[in-house]
Amino acid sequence: MNDISPELRMILSTIREFVQEEIIPLEPLLLNHEYNPLMAQLQEKRDKAHSLGLWLPQIPQEYGGMGLTLVEHGRVSEILGRSLLGHYVFNCQAPDAGNMEILIEHGTPEQKETYLMPLLRGEIRSCFSMTEPENPGSNPTWMSTKAVKEGSDYVITGHKWFSTAADGATFAIVMAITNPTAAKHERASQIIVPTAVPGFRLVRNTSVMGERGMGWASHGEIMYDGVRVPQTNLLGPEGAGFAIAQERLGPGRIHHCMRWIGICERAFDLMCAHAVRREVAPGRPLAEQQTIQNWVAESRAEINAARLMVLDAAYKIDAQGQYAARDEVSLIKFYVAGVLQRVLDRALQAHGALGMTDETPIAYWYRHERAARIYDGPDEVHKRSVARRILQRYA
Amino acid sequence: MNDISPELRMILSTIREFVQEEIIPLEPLLLNHEYNPLMAQLQEKRDKAHSLGLWLPQIPQEYGGMGLTLVEHGRVSEILGRSLLGHYVFNCQAPDAGNMEILIEHGTPEQKETYLMPLLRGEIRSCFSMTEPENPGSNPTWMSTKAVKEGSDYVITGHKWFSTAADGATFAIVMAITNPTAAKHERASQIIVPTAVPGFRLVRNTSVMGERGMGWASHGEIMYDGVRVPQTNLLGPEGAGFAIAQERLGPGRIHHCMRWIGICERAFDLMCAHAVRREVAPGRPLAEQQTIQNWVAESRAEINAARLMVLDAAYKIDAQGQYAARDEVSLIKFYVAGVLQRVLDRALQAHGALGMTDETPIAYWYRHERAARIYDGPDEVHKRSVARRILQRYA
Amino acid sequence: MNDISPELRMILSTIREFVQEEIIPLEPLLLNHEYNPLMAQLQEKRDKAHSLGLWLPQIPQEYGGMGLTLVEHGRVSEILGRSLLGHYVFNCQAPDAGNMEILIEHGTPEQKETYLMPLLRGEIRSCFSMTEPENPGSNPTWMSTKAVKEGSDYVITGHKWFSTAADGATFAIVMAITNPTAAKHERASQIIVPTAVPGFRLVRNTSVMGERGMGWASHGEIMYDGVRVPQTNLLGPEGAGFAIAQERLGPGRIHHCMRWIGICERAFDLMCAHAVRREVAPGRPLAEQQTIQNWVAESRAEINAARLMVLDAAYKIDAQGQYAARDEVSLIKFYVAGVLQRVLDRALQAHGALGMTDETPIAYWYRHERAARIYDGPDEVHKRSVARRILQRYA
Amino acid sequence: MNDISPELRMILSTIREFVQEEIIPLEPLLLNHEYNPLMAQLQEKRDKAHSLGLWLPQIPQEYGGMGLTLVEHGRVSEILGRSLLGHYVFNCQAPDAGNMEILIEHGTPEQKETYLMPLLRGEIRSCFSMTEPENPGSNPTWMSTKAVKEGSDYVITGHKWFSTAADGATFAIVMAITNPTAAKHERASQIIVPTAVPGFRLVRNTSVMGERGMGWASHGEIMYDGVRVPQTNLLGPEGAGFAIAQERLGPGRIHHCMRWIGICERAFDLMCAHAVRREVAPGRPLAEQQTIQNWVAESRAEINAARLMVLDAAYKIDAQGQYAARDEVSLIKFYVAGVLQRVLDRALQAHGALGMTDETPIAYWYRHERAARIYDGPDEVHKRSVARRILQRYA
Repeated sequence: MNDISPELRMILSTIREFVQEEIIPLEPLLLNHEYNPLMAQLQEKRDKAHSLGLWLPQIPQEYGGMGLTLVEHGRVSEILGRSLLGHYVFNCQAPDAGNMEILIEHGTPEQKETYLMPLLRGEIRSCFSMTEPENPGSNPTWMSTKAVKEGSDYVITGHKWFSTAADGATFAIVMAITNPTAAKHERASQIIVPTAVPGFRLVRNTSVMGERGMGWASHGEIMYDGVRVPQTNLLGPEGAGFAIAQERLGPGRIHHCMRWIGICERAFDLMCAHAVRREVAPGRPLAEQQTIQNWVAESRAEINAARLMVLDAAYKIDAQGQYAARDEVSLIKFYVAGVLQRVLDRALQAHGALGMTDETPIAYWYRHERAARIYDGPDEVHKRSVARRILQRYA
Repeated sequence: MNDISPELRMILSTIREFVQEEIIPLEPLLLNHEYNPLMAQLQEKRDKAHSLGLWLPQIPQEYGGMGLTLVEHGRVSEILGRSLLGHYVFNCQAPDAGNMEILIEHGTPEQKETYLMPLLRGEIRSCFSMTEPENPGSNPTWMSTKAVKEGSDYVITGHKWFSTAADGATFAIVMAITNPTAAKHERASQIIVPTAVPGFRLVRNTSVMGERGMGWASHGEIMYDGVRVPQTNLLGPEGAGFAIAQERLGPGRIHHCMRWIGICERAFDLMCAHAVRREVAPGRPLAEQQTIQNWVAESRAEINAARLMVLDAAYKIDAQGQYAARDEVSLIKFYVAGVLQRVLDRALQAHGALGMTDETPIAYWYRHERAARIYDGPDEVHKRSVARRILQRYA
Repeated sequence: MNDISPELRMILSTIREFVQEEIIPLEPLLLNHEYNPLMAQLQEKRDKAHSLGLWLPQIPQEYGGMGLTLVEHGRVSEILGRSLLGHYVFNCQAPDAGNMEILIEHGTPEQKETYLMPLLRGEIRSCFSMTEPENPGSNPTWMSTKAVKEGSDYVITGHKWFSTAADGATFAIVMAITNPTAAKHERASQIIVPTAVPGFRLVRNTSVMGERGMGWASHGEIMYDGVRVPQTNLLGPEGAGFAIAQERLGPGRIHHCMRWIGICERAFDLMCAHAVRREVAPGRPLAEQQTIQNWVAESRAEINAARLMVLDAAYKIDAQGQYAARDEVSLIKFYVAGVLQRVLDRALQAHGALGMTDETPIAYWYRHERAARIYDGPDEVHKRSVARRILQRYA
Repeated sequence: MNDISPELRMILSTIREFVQEEIIPLEPLLLNHEYNPLMAQLQEKRDKAHSLGLWLPQIPQEYGGMGLTLVEHGRVSEILGRSLLGHYVFNCQAPDAGNMEILIEHGTPEQKETYLMPLLRGEIRSCFSMTEPENPGSNPTWMSTKAVKEGSDYVITGHKWFSTAADGATFAIVMAITNPTAAKHERASQIIVPTAVPGFRLVRNTSVMGERGMGWASHGEIMYDGVRVPQTNLLGPEGAGFAIAQERLGPGRIHHCMRWIGICERAFDLMCAHAVRREVAPGRPLAEQQTIQNWVAESRAEINAARLMVLDAAYKIDAQGQYAARDEVSLIKFYVAGVLQRVLDRALQAHGALGMTDETPIAYWYRHERAARIYDGPDEVHKRSVARRILQRYA
């Protein structure tokens, strides 16, 4: 596990410095809702990263990326996760990163030319439109949005929300029922929908934890009012929507979890640094309080455990494929999300009133990363599914 | 404990309906940062509440209040706490409620005329200015703000933050060191400072959990740059700042804790209602999931426990005074704050993605009431102080 | 809640002293498995308690008891619970106490004469035989033991275990299916079975947490091999077995929970006393460690909460009956059992290696009271049933 | 981490089968306190293991062991830990295993001949005598036992307890103060004391969790009443007692933690097997309850995390030495002990009443492995020490 190659070590070190020096200073713009200057400055940082060859770490070299393995990109993702803005600068942010993978794997040459290439170059953004307000996200096969064939088109009707980064996106990948009478997991397809087509309506950016956000940092509610797109916008075979989503699952999970670990490490650093600096009485730093020491020790243990579990899962995917690693991929979802929440809670508490403010990123993570236990399947669903698989082996 | 008088029962029932019908519908204005219409509509509700005699529940009748006991107001406070805006409408919101109590107890006739009476009438607002960014709130005797006598004035110099509702307040009650060489708890005084005086500068409303808020719903950072006020603005004797603050502690704790319990009850209602309505598969409501049932049962037990503890403390204060009840007053602080956090966490999780949005008040409480474990002394400080008292009895 | 009458206060004070001076010194006999001298000395203490009028606190005066209310006996039960042997000395130990209540309520004059009176006088002991090894205790209606009528007799066949105190008991009250085709809750009856009848076989005292125990302090596994008893041994109407058991539930729960609180208080005292006495370095008592202080504060809060909840349930039963209080009766089961486990865990840990030994009663409680979360319905069953009732109200 | 060599894989498989087929069937003898037949049968199994070359896995081949690395023996230790008796059969049980390591590293040729060789052959047993009842185990430098030079002898006076397996041991390694005025960590020495010498008195086997045990399965309280041994019994240099103990720490920690993980895995297997077999209602296995599923998922995640952490620490020790790995060695102590306690608690609860009995090994582990959070330094001490090291890096 500690076998990081010298090349990777150098990349990680470069990225770490970049994050520290170039990206973290921009965080206050996000925390203060100054989205326009933020986007302008992020573009400069993207250009700089691109010029340094630090671009698309997870994407194969033939597509202009760095071609890292899952484990290697996991390591990168942890470091990027230290900043609220890390992934965006290197063009490996959700949801674009996942959409790139889908297009690379399943896109036709035309789809790649039109949608993938500008995405890889960072010229456009995209979104993934799956979750519906009327149906539980915990049951992904229960979906109301429909795509009906008319002539050579699909006509899409439905209501989505939590389409992250829809605001300003050039296209959406939409999950819609195309085969309503097929088996449960073969009813939906993934279809590319340019956001400029008639009938695509971004109703609003949903207010999440008090913030509607803007652009990439937003969660769109979308009405698809009879949106018409050519059937050539279908990704992969009809009815393969879930199968394609499933493929992204393992690697996506690794990226997410490593990002969370990056958050944990930054919050841990902030907690420790504050504890040695802040005095509870003249000459008596907070760091001498045993309760703080307990939090430091418990956080350190939990973060280490989390990282080892995620890397172990990544190795297993790299070596044996996703199917072999499906228990591990389920386990890290709820385990790492739990660690994240506890570490953030302790870091916030250790900061006292300062922890409630937006002068550190802790409060931002505390409120927004609460979603870690919900999106991509709530903890409860993952616990149930992994437990059922395990228990069957004892039957 | 279940001995609520018929009169109180009727008051509680009236207030409950008022909160449900008149106040809760205004919550989206707060959640969407529409502060100006919010304030206008709140004023209407205040007028209505006042005309119904539901005004200043905690204030003696001779001052125009309802004259409830601590236990009775606790019960009222729970019901008001069900809404984000409950206390404000009945003019018993922090920090004004505490400032009223101080002025009633320690104000001179002139101070009462000038500051208390318009506050009671709801014509002005006030703030309490104690916490300092450079010093730990957990150690209230460590304070840098100074009030130095010059002629018949005090000249106040210092830096405060988390002066809740300073934005738009007419006056602040400021804690400042007047007797630097006195015993630790006799150094500070409470002094009335009109916010219009030269040198009083509201630097900003601190961004807390992503929101700067406005007016009553804000936390001000204030510079006192040589503010000059007459010495007649002193509250009580010089050096009595802590003693006066201490007096407010027990009753203030009861109000806070009962407000938290009101929040718990509303969140519990929202969780249960969502669980019976939301289906995880057609015909299978969320309420049938055992994990949800565990949360319901555990939350019910913890909320009941919390209420009994707070009422028990209130009875003890009413019957034997604050000193006798100081263990209980310490215990409820961290115990109820812990229950609050767990209940909100479960309610949010039970709502899934909806729980992250501002379409329910849960996300607001989740982020802002995180402060419950920090303000008024962090949990850790209360645990330590009550434990020390207990352990001494075994020595 | 703090309204203990002067009479009760005096009784409690007397009992407290009796427990401290007379009973606690016998505990090492139990902890060291010296059952014979233990039983002899307990008999002396029983005689003494009886002569002081401290006998059968929960039993009506016309039956020779003290005639306390549920709330009053709850207070007594807490104090008795401070010792491993408290309840036994005052003849209000499980399972005899419950059996007395059943016989008083449902026994015929002959049954009372034969079984109740010697039980009240402390001359004999009894057991309650319900749990079966082959069927889950969590589903009380699923039972294999049968009682079939033959002539004027019942012939009972079945296999029971955890028939506490069967070893040396004069009779058992046996739950057996008499009406196999009736509605689920009307199939079983309670039947008195003298242990001397042919076919009654105490297979063994089950080894529980390493100890088989002896006499009252044991859990019997019993075979009923065609045991024949007259039908006059039936308690109440045929098929009323569950209804009768149900009646005992509320009061039994109160007794148990208050006993657990007594255990908590004693463990808390031991923890605090050890913490002030034990030094971690010369001159630095354990009590100064913040972690210990956290445990003291958290334990104090939780024990107080637990007591208030149990007394609140007891008041409600006294005032409005069991049915009105059924939520509370469910809630205290798992809530108080949870507090008990946490308090014992902390007390043990605070004692270090000493906590693992039998030189304090903590290790005994740690291992044997682990059953508190299991017997009388596991936590999980109570959570589910109370949650279902609550959720129905939101449907 | 998953890089187990084919050779090791075969060894593990053989040992796993041996444990399952030969050792687990003996467990009831221990659980029922039938120590004499137990010891006889264990001797047969030892002979068999020895003849199969499965003997002393952790000991270098030149001393007759299998010569496994720390990581490899960790893997073995996990499998042995699945049974209460696993380590004993392969002669790698505490405390002998540690004593062997000390003798190999620091023993003179004479000491090796007299004490080490028969130990390696399994002909004798030994104990390690360090903990004192009057001094806190959490502070190892605070010790009262003294060894004073007289002529060519040491005269040892002191009081020890928790000298595991002293009952029947041929010699003890005793920690005693030899240099009272030296620096704190250089005061004590390790001295070999044959138990047959005058003045060595095994006062009793301490009753731990209700059991005094016998022979290897016991914890001795020992008085050293002026015990006289030649100075040639000193291990290593005088004053090096702590330094030598320190050396054993890392590897010993790995063994312990891997043994705990073996316990976790066995308890997990028992829980899952019970859950699929036990029905809560006809046709409805316990395994379908969501709460059980939560326990399965959480346990699986935590056990995996624990194993990865321990192996990671072992790799680091193997690769970089103990000093480099001292954070990891501290972290696994409390982290794995915590996992162990939670997994056992869930497994016990899942078994219901059966879990309280000695018909599975769960109750044994539940009570005796509670000590995991205490011996070898309580959790609290390890948290504090690792936190202090970490926090210093932020100063």
